[in-house]
This record gives sequence, C-alpha cells and structure tokens, in this order.
Amino acid sequence: MSDPGPPRLADFPTEAAQSALRRVEWRIDRTLRLRNDNQPGVLGEVAGAIGTVGGNIGDIRTVQRGSAHVVRDLDVSCADLTMLDRVLESVRRLAHTRLLDVRDEVLRVHVGGKLKVVPRYPVGSPADLRRVYTPGVAEVCRLIAREPAAADRYTMIANTVAVVTDGSAVLGLGDIGPVAGMPVMEGKCALLAQLVQVDAIPILLQPGPPEALVDAVARIAPTFGAIQLEDIAAPACFTIAPRLQERVSIPVVHDDQHGTATVVLAAVTRAAQLVGRPLGSLRAGVVGLGAAGTAIAELLIQVLDQPVLGAGRTADSIERLTAAGGTPVTLEELLSRSDIVIATTAQPHLIAAEQVRPGQLIFALSNPVPEILPERALAAGAAIAVDGSVVNNLLGFPGLFRGALDTRARRFTPGMFLAAAAAIAAEARGEELVPDALDPGVHRAVARAVARAAVAGEVARVVPPADYFE
Amino acid sequence: MSDPGPPRLADFPTEAAQSALRRVEWRIDRTLRLRNDNQPGVLGEVAGAIGTVGGNIGDIRTVQRGSAHVVRDLDVSCADLTMLDRVLESVRRLAHTRLLDVRDEVLRVHVGGKLKVVPRYPVGSPADLRRVYTPGVAEVCRLIAREPAAADRYTMIANTVAVVTDGSAVLGLGDIGPVAGMPVMEGKCALLAQLVQVDAIPILLQPGPPEALVDAVARIAPTFGAIQLEDIAAPACFTIAPRLQERVSIPVVHDDQHGTATVVLAAVTRAAQLVGRPLGSLRAGVVGLGAAGTAIAELLIQVLDQPVLGAGRTADSIERLTAAGGTPVTLEELLSRSDIVIATTAQPHLIAAEQVRPGQLIFALSNPVPEILPERALAAGAAIAVDGSVVNNLLGFPGLFRGALDTRARRFTPGMFLAAAAAIAAEARGEELVPDALDPGVHRAVARAVARAAVAGEVARVVPPADYFE
Repeated sequence: MSDPGPPRLADFPTEAAQSALRRVEWRIDRTLRLRNDNQPGVLGEVAGAIGTVGGNIGDIRTVQRGSAHVVRDLDVSCADLTMLDRVLESVRRLAHTRLLDVRDEVLRVHVGGKLKVVPRYPVGSPADLRRVYTPGVAEVCRLIAREPAAADRYTMIANTVAVVTDGSAVLGLGDIGPVAGMPVMEGKCALLAQLVQVDAIPILLQPGPPEALVDAVARIAPTFGAIQLEDIAAPACFTIAPRLQERVSIPVVHDDQHGTATVVLAAVTRAAQLVGRPLGSLRAGVVGLGAAGTAIAELLIQVLDQPVLGAGRTADSIERLTAAGGTPVTLEELLSRSDIVIATTAQPHLIAAEQVRPGQLIFALSNPVPEILPERALAAGAAIAVDGSVVNNLLGFPGLFRGALDTRARRFTPGMFLAAAAAIAAEARGEELVPDALDPGVHRAVARAVARAAVAGEVARVVPPADYFE
Repeated sequence: MSDPGPPRLADFPTEAAQSALRRVEWRIDRTLRLRNDNQPGVLGEVAGAIGTVGGNIGDIRTVQRGSAHVVRDLDVSCADLTMLDRVLESVRRLAHTRLLDVRDEVLRVHVGGKLKVVPRYPVGSPADLRRVYTPGVAEVCRLIAREPAAADRYTMIANTVAVVTDGSAVLGLGDIGPVAGMPVMEGKCALLAQLVQVDAIPILLQPGPPEALVDAVARIAPTFGAIQLEDIAAPACFTIAPRLQERVSIPVVHDDQHGTATVVLAAVTRAAQLVGRPLGSLRAGVVGLGAAGTAIAELLIQVLDQPVLGAGRTADSIERLTAAGGTPVTLEELLSRSDIVIATTAQPHLIAAEQVRPGQLIFALSNPVPEILPERALAAGAAIAVDGSVVNNLLGFPGLFRGALDTRARRFTPGMFLAAAAAIAAEARGEELVPDALDPGVHRAVARAVARAAVAGEVARVVPPADYFE
C-alpha cells in the first residue's frame, strides 16, 4: 500500500478543506473566567484575541451581569500548553477585559474518580440494620441458596456490568497500563449509569498472558450480569473475548470490536438510506484489519449479500478475514471496487483524493487524523464522507447492555448487534447520519431492539413484559 | 471435651435465665399493618396476642391516627413460618383490631440489590461529555501514565474496597456459594458506603482451589485501595489471606479473622476496664481454633504479656496455635486457668456452669446459641458474660478500612488492629461493653487510630494532614 505522504495545503481548493488540514487535536481544555466591561464589541475582542493565536472557543456562560461589568466563563481548547500560554497572554493584553481565573475543568470533574457507590436503603436504626444486614439478610441468602433465580430480584447482579481492561490499548494512547486507563473505565461506567441505569463497575487487570486474564475474569464473573471488555490490544483481544465467552454464561463484548462494529454498521445503514440505495446492493471494503476493522468486516459479512473486501497488513489479519468469509485484496483494488469504504488503519492521509470513486460512502475512522479528510473525499466525489468523530461507541454500548440485562441474555448474538445498529440508524433524523448519543430515548430504543433480538435468538433467559417493547 | 448436653429449665433459678433458655433464633421478620379502635388498652391486647404465641415485637410506628381508629405498623419477629401463622391467627381473633396487611420488609429492602453505582458528575451536554469522557479524559490518562500517584486524586481507586467472597462460610449458613452470599457482601458494602463513605464493591469468586482464588484477586487488585475477604471457610482462609497479601501492595484482611479479632479485643479491653483489672495481668483462653479463634489467639498473643491458652479439635489448629506462640491445653484446663474465656466453637452449651470460675470474663460468641448462656455464666459467678450478639464486626471493619485508605497503607499491621480495638473500647460509655455501631463518630475515631498506627508502623504511603487527627 503506497503512502501518498502528507497532503499540502496548496492541493486543496476550498477554504473548508484548507481549514480542515490545519486541524489539531484539542488536548488541553481550560475555563477562563473573565470580567468584561459591559459594552458592545468586547466579547468580540475576546474571541478574536483567542482565535488569532489558535485557541478554540467552546461554551460561554454568563456568571454575573452588572451595569459596568459582565463576568463570563469561557471554555477554551488548545492543542498544547504553549498554545494555552499564548491564549492567556493574548487575553491579558486586552483593554476592556480582565482575566480573573484559569480553571482546569477537565481535571476537576475527575477528582475523586467519576463514580460513587451508594446504599439503596440507608441504615438509620438498629431495626434497619436487622433488615439490611444480620440477621435479616440470612433469610435472603437462604432463599437464593434454595432458588438461585431469586438472585435476579434480591441482588444487584442482574443489573451489574463489569467494564474490564488491562490498559493495553487505551483510546489512541496505546499501552499505558490499567491504572492510567481507569479514567476511561470510570467514564464508561458513569455513562452506563446515567444513560441506562446500569450498575457498572470498572475492573482493572494486572497485565498478563491472555489465558491468565480470561481465568481471572471468569473467576469473578458470578458478580455480574454482563462483561464489557475495553481497550484491550490486538491480537490478544481476538482470543480473550471468545474464550471468556466460552467460560461464562453471561454476555461478553469487547467494545472496541463489536461495540464499534455495531455503531459503524448503524452509520453505514443510515448512509445507504440517505443516498437512497439498498444496503444489500452495496459492496463494502474494510481497510485496516485490527480489532475494530476485523469486527466490522465480520459483522458486515453477516449482513450484506456479497462478500466484504478487506485490506490488511499482516498475514494473521488476512487469515482472520478469510476465515470470516471476507476477500483479501490490495488497497488499490479495494478502493476501486467498493461502494462503502471503512478505514481503521491509524494511518493519517492513507487514501489519496484520486483514489476516491464518485458516489462512494467513505468512513475514515482513525483518530485524531483520518485516512482521508471528509472535505477532501467529498471534493473528490464521495457521496458521504465522515471521520471518527461521528462514529461514537457511546451510541451502542449502553443500549446493548440494557437490552442484554433486561433479558438476562446468555451471550450477545450477531442478531443483537444488527438489531442495535438498525435501531440506532432508525433514530437519526433529517440529514443526521447518527442520532444524539446523550438522548436517553435513543438508548431505550436500542435496548428494546436488542432485547427483542435476544428473545428471537433464543439467548434470553427472561422475556420482558409486553409493555417493555412499547 | 465433654458435652454436658442441653441444659434443662429446672436447672436454673432465675426467671431471666429461664427466659434465656427459651431463646430462639428470630429468622422471620414481618411488618403487620393493623387498624386498632382508638381506645385505651387495645395496643396491650395486640401485644398480648402476639407474645402469647411466641412472637417478638420490635418497633411500632403510627401510620395514621383518626378519632375512631389508629393505623399502626408493628415489626414482628418469629422463629419460623409456623410461629408467624400462629401470630397472624391470634391477631385476627382480636375484637378491636383489624389486620390490614402483612409485609416482608426484609425482602423489600433487598429488591434490586442494596447498592447503586452513580456518576459523580452527570453528563448533561456535549461539553460535559468532552470533559468526563473523550477527548478530555485522555488528558487525565496521560497525567496518570506520567505520574502514577495522580491516580490517587483523579480516580476512585484510593477510595475503593473490594468485598470478596467464594461463599464458602456465609454467616452461620455454611457453604452456600458466592451468589447466595451476595446479599451479605452488598450489605457490608452498603454499610461501608454509609458509615465511612468508602466506595465498596462486592466481588463474587467462582469457588476453586486457594491458589486460583489468590491469582484472580491479585489480578484485579489494581482496581482497589484495599481488599476485604469475607466469609471464606477455614482452612482455605489461613492461606488465602496471607498469600494474597504477599502478592499485592494494598491492605488485605479476612474480616472473619482479623476483623472479628479486633472487635473481640475491643470488648476484652473494655471488660478488663469495667472490672478494674489491667489487661496485661489477665490470662486469656481461646476455645475453638477455627478462623476466628485462631486470629483472636494470634492478636491476643501480640498484646498480652503471658502466653494465651488454646483448646482446639484438630492437629492443624493446635499447630497454628503453637506456631503463633500459644499454649495448647484441654478445655477443662483452659477453663480452670483462664481469667478471660473466649469461645468460638459453634457448639451450643459446650461450657457447663460448674466449669465457670468466679470473676471470669466470658465471651461465648457462637451464633445463634452460645457455648454458655450469659445469664447462666453470670449466675455461676462470672464477672462479665456476653454472647455473639454483643461482639459485632460492624464495629471494626469500617474504621479499619477508612484509616487504611486515608494513609494509602500497604498492608494492615497488628498495631493497626490493636489501635482500632483500643479506639472502639475507648468509645464505649458508662457500663457499655462496646459502643453503638451505627454512630459515625465511633468509626471516625477508629479510622484516626488506625491511620496513626499505619504511620507509626511505617506502612503508610501518605500522612494525613494534622487536622485529620483532631
């Protein structure tokens, strides 16, 4: 596969494309508290001062409005600390503005961790203690020992998901270890708690051989109703997820594989709708056969009529693709033959504009810099082109787990991923490719679809009441 | 060791002793909602009707008071379902009382489990999401990867305790398995959350050989600031706790061993105070060398001047006692030579009244029926005699963990158990042998003492600020 080298600004005609090429990773978020003179134009000066040196302004909140002054909080994103210094210097030079404070809001919302474990039934008296703890609790224990299914009702197990990592592939940061990965695990747990009321618990694994990790998670599995593996590097993830699933009778998913594949399938489904072509009539090509790429290829193969094309770098990845029913091809061949191109290579600007075929649907998903900038792909004739910021796993995993728990599913099936993808796509409105990931209604719709597929796929232990599906 | 057989009512002179012999295990708790005619004497009739057939009345709450009627909730404990039926029948026969409802309040407070995982910083907007989750979270991950100690501040790890069981010795119920043990683990976690604001997480282990259990817990240890092993049967617990402690650099305690020993030591310390004798001048004898008995003997040996006497049934238990510096003797010798007798044999009425020495301090701790009823021991001349209902582990573990977490202790030391015991004893008031386990002030005092001992014992990674100890 030829690397076209980094594109040059001069290659691109439009201003949007040029601005996109200057795209930076906004790694530093700060909140500036400013006291502005209360007169027209001052906020414009502030915005100008920040923008000139490259800072990116987010939300602006009025803290206090007096006759002479207005105090405001501005969220500002910078590429690095040097840029932040330039932003602050630039703001300090303004005549009608005083910089009162610079706060690190990102770190602030991580202080103490992002989760709290609280009792459902606070103990206020010895009588409460008798019920919640001994001797009352013995009655509940005996009941479960006699009727194991009673654990669904009288413990938190059926509503609890473990979010498990060894920290070997955290975000785009690589192998930073489990403890440094904890903020991500806590974040996923917090979102599961907030969006679908799952009790999600982060579990950090001391790194080790795949078999040892599988052993440990299988050993603690009785605690949980489902297991979300997270940020585990390839190729270990290819063996850990399926081997763990063989050992336990609760659903296991590696979010970076099937969670991602589900959301990509949703976006692909919706894109086909938007261009008015039946998904089954489109040939898909997957570029990059790592954890995500392989799972995407596998899921597409189970959905589309014709085989999926795939381009990967290693013999192992080609072997996995072939085993799944995919057809290995070169990058060039894939790009020229595919209606849908999905790239997860982590190789910036891998795809040249000349390689884009008119009408193609292009998903260049590597972060922070995609295989081809959407603007560039569109300019070259793609019908739809998006990058990784659009395809957010948060659209998938909450509803997948809610639906799996509500049916006490034994495992996830391709049908459940497919149902989730269809539900996500169906929730998108107007010209949206995907719906709002913070909308609880989206996750409820996904959960219902997943639950229905679990029942249809005969992996459900419990069929929810009819009104669950309404 | 001779078993004197169950004592007969006729053996005992006092009414209190006779009533104690009728002692039952109150296994069934229900709440009766009654509508009484609003006239004097009706509540007395109700109490009489319930008491006559053996029911034990707990709290009474007025739900609604009208001119003609009063609606009340009565908590009633019964030995079994037959007794409950008799209670209900008896109440239904009353002229001025109507039974409106019978509720199982115990089961009610276990529905859905007793813990909830909630986000500390709810995500309400895309801007929140940027901070709590990607891309903001990457900044926190990188910070921790660079400075591992930052995890104490920016994750929940340093405030999180795993409450771990294989379900092999749950309460007095025996080996009921991990899932049936979950209500106890959730209860401990809920109490840790409520009393000392620890984020406590239950972990259920699929049963297996001790080494496999140690492997699994060591593998997930990066998640936690401390580990509480719970309800693990002897002899496995004797190897699991110390081997796990060798593998991890966070404190590990088996509550049924050192948690119990700490609270027993507190009660013993306080009992010596109450009878005005220095603890160091008293010889202690431990009857029954299971998990609790052995740990009690070990801790006493580290505290008292003279060796501790011990009576156990197995060669292994005798060997453990000798290794710890204790002196194995027969039950008879132990009872005749000890000033303090601590029994954890699970053998009801093992100690005969004739074996009690005047002035002895007797802790007959087996549940539900002690080795000798306190009333019987007191009648036979004991200075102080209590059963297991007095020595509640809840007095110990919350403060032990709070103090260990607040100093980021590497492990528990005997000095920390000792400090906790002294602090518990010091919180008792008047003639109390132990303080109120639901008083948060008690747990704060224990935590401070444990933290001080962790610093003194050089196992603390962090020294709390001076005002922590005030």
